[in-house]
Amino acid sequence: MKESNPAKEVVAKMLAKDNFSQWLGVEVLDSDLGNCTIQMTIRKEMLNAFGTVHGGVTFAFADSALAFSSNSYGRISVALEVSMSYPVAVRLGDQLTAVAKEVSLTNKIGVYFITISNQKKQTVGIFKGTVYRTSKELLD
Amino acid sequence: MKESNPAKEVVAKMLAKDNFSQWLGVEVLDSDLGNCTIQMTIRKEMLNAFGTVHGGVTFAFADSALAFSSNSYGRISVALEVSMSYPVAVRLGDQLTAVAKEVSLTNKIGVYFITISNQKKQTVGIFKGTVYRTSKELLD
Amino acid sequence: MKESNPAKEVVAKMLAKDNFSQWLGVEVLDSDLGNCTIQMTIRKEMLNAFGTVHGGVTFAFADSALAFSSNSYGRISVALEVSMSYPVAVRLGDQLTAVAKEVSLTNKIGVYFITISNQKKQTVGIFKGTVYRTSKELLD
Amino acid sequence: MKESNPAKEVVAKMLAKDNFSQWLGVEVLDSDLGNCTIQMTIRKEMLNAFGTVHGGVTFAFADSALAFSSNSYGRISVALEVSMSYPVAVRLGDQLTAVAKEVSLTNKIGVYFITISNQKKQTVGIFKGTVYRTSKELLD
Repeated sequence: MKESNPAKEVVAKMLAKDNFSQWLGVEVLDSDLGNCTIQMTIRKEMLNAFGTVHGGVTFAFADSALAFSSNSYGRISVALEVSMSYPVAVRLGDQLTAVAKEVSLTNKIGVYFITISNQKKQTVGIFKGTVYRTSKELLD
Repeated sequence: MKESNPAKEVVAKMLAKDNFSQWLGVEVLDSDLGNCTIQMTIRKEMLNAFGTVHGGVTFAFADSALAFSSNSYGRISVALEVSMSYPVAVRLGDQLTAVAKEVSLTNKIGVYFITISNQKKQTVGIFKGTVYRTSKELLD
Repeated sequence: MKESNPAKEVVAKMLAKDNFSQWLGVEVLDSDLGNCTIQMTIRKEMLNAFGTVHGGVTFAFADSALAFSSNSYGRISVALEVSMSYPVAVRLGDQLTAVAKEVSLTNKIGVYFITISNQKKQTVGIFKGTVYRTSKELLD
Repeated sequence: MKESNPAKEVVAKMLAKDNFSQWLGVEVLDSDLGNCTIQMTIRKEMLNAFGTVHGGVTFAFADSALAFSSNSYGRISVALEVSMSYPVAVRLGDQLTAVAKEVSLTNKIGVYFITISNQKKQTVGIFKGTVYRTSKELLD
């Protein structure tokens, strides 16, 4: 018997329409209500002037994880405020994994912690995001 | 008589080597020690699942402004921590302008405020970034 | 003819009822719609284990400035998310001045930049705050 | 045989010298290298103009948890940047518990997530802090 996971369905539909997450090469490894795990690999068009990864790319990857986890309930949620720390530089070819966890959920506001690690299990990005939960349904 | 502006030179060299800022289509309108003004226009590959701009794109644009302003002294500076608020959604075709201002500079740490506005002069992004100033020279 | 400034009135009433801002010794130097300037002096009960000022005190001072500037319109506004950088340590006896400026105001959300300086004009704290604007009236 | 926990010793010595954490009424429930759990109870001098708790108090409590966890190794660590979200208001008489967890530690930089809950197990504060690890020893 097949068990359906509504979060998985929502996230799959979101990714299918999300041009920039597709450009990043985001793959969803797992998703559930309020949480998700996603992956991507660094390409050379993602580098900055120092030959390391542009901070905006790592951030955008975390932001995709925020969108997938906070919208998983099917209510459109928009980021109000996000912050990120960069303890270790990200490099060409790195395979990044982002794990998003819901820390708080009220009717209007959700807060998420997201950690990004590389293929050596080093933490390379640490992200906190606060979303406003609208009353609009996400899909159709 | 031509006055040289060392910040302009540094920023031009940085942009020439910065693949992701080039992908974004960043243009430098003005730059000086600790400050810069840059511009970009939103293309359809920058949109998210809702048809508005992926938060990571707006963030990355601010992050480029952070890199150009904090590295303008010629010392390599790396972002430690950044935060961003999104008061108004960004849309396809919007022309964004980021203005970066240095708020504090000590030997090791610099702090910058960056505001992003659209072509209607609405503030669409508000960014604060803290950088660690290494002792390495930026260029050659 | 006396011009009244409604923001000044709101802020004076707020401070009169704000126990913790009174404990801090906050004085309002100036206030207007969306902006304010306040002052306080560091006492020994505000120090941490290193004999410098506890980060929570400097933060709380900025947070009072956020409350006074964001509530100045007479609509109750509550902080959703705040971030702060500490470029320079604060010490016993320092006289701190916080200047709050509104960066963005929509119907539901306000964003503020606040800088804190000491008596030597050094920037000792840099704060960004995002508030949610309720529809409740502030006073009576 | 008694096992000693060097983190516990460091934190006890820190609290004994930390005037403002004492004013807050901070008690250390548990501490270890990089982590700690602390508690406090809200008194009326901690309230703001709305009769709820001043955001600076909740923040300061998290900031004490940051100091105790990041200094637990015995190297002086100073906050560079912190951010906080407030999902639920804190009220007079609330008993708050802060749990600090180390998310990343490199030679120079540590990053910590701290969640604050009330006696009803509601999350009332969510904090991320980045510290700079000096090379100075903490004690004697």
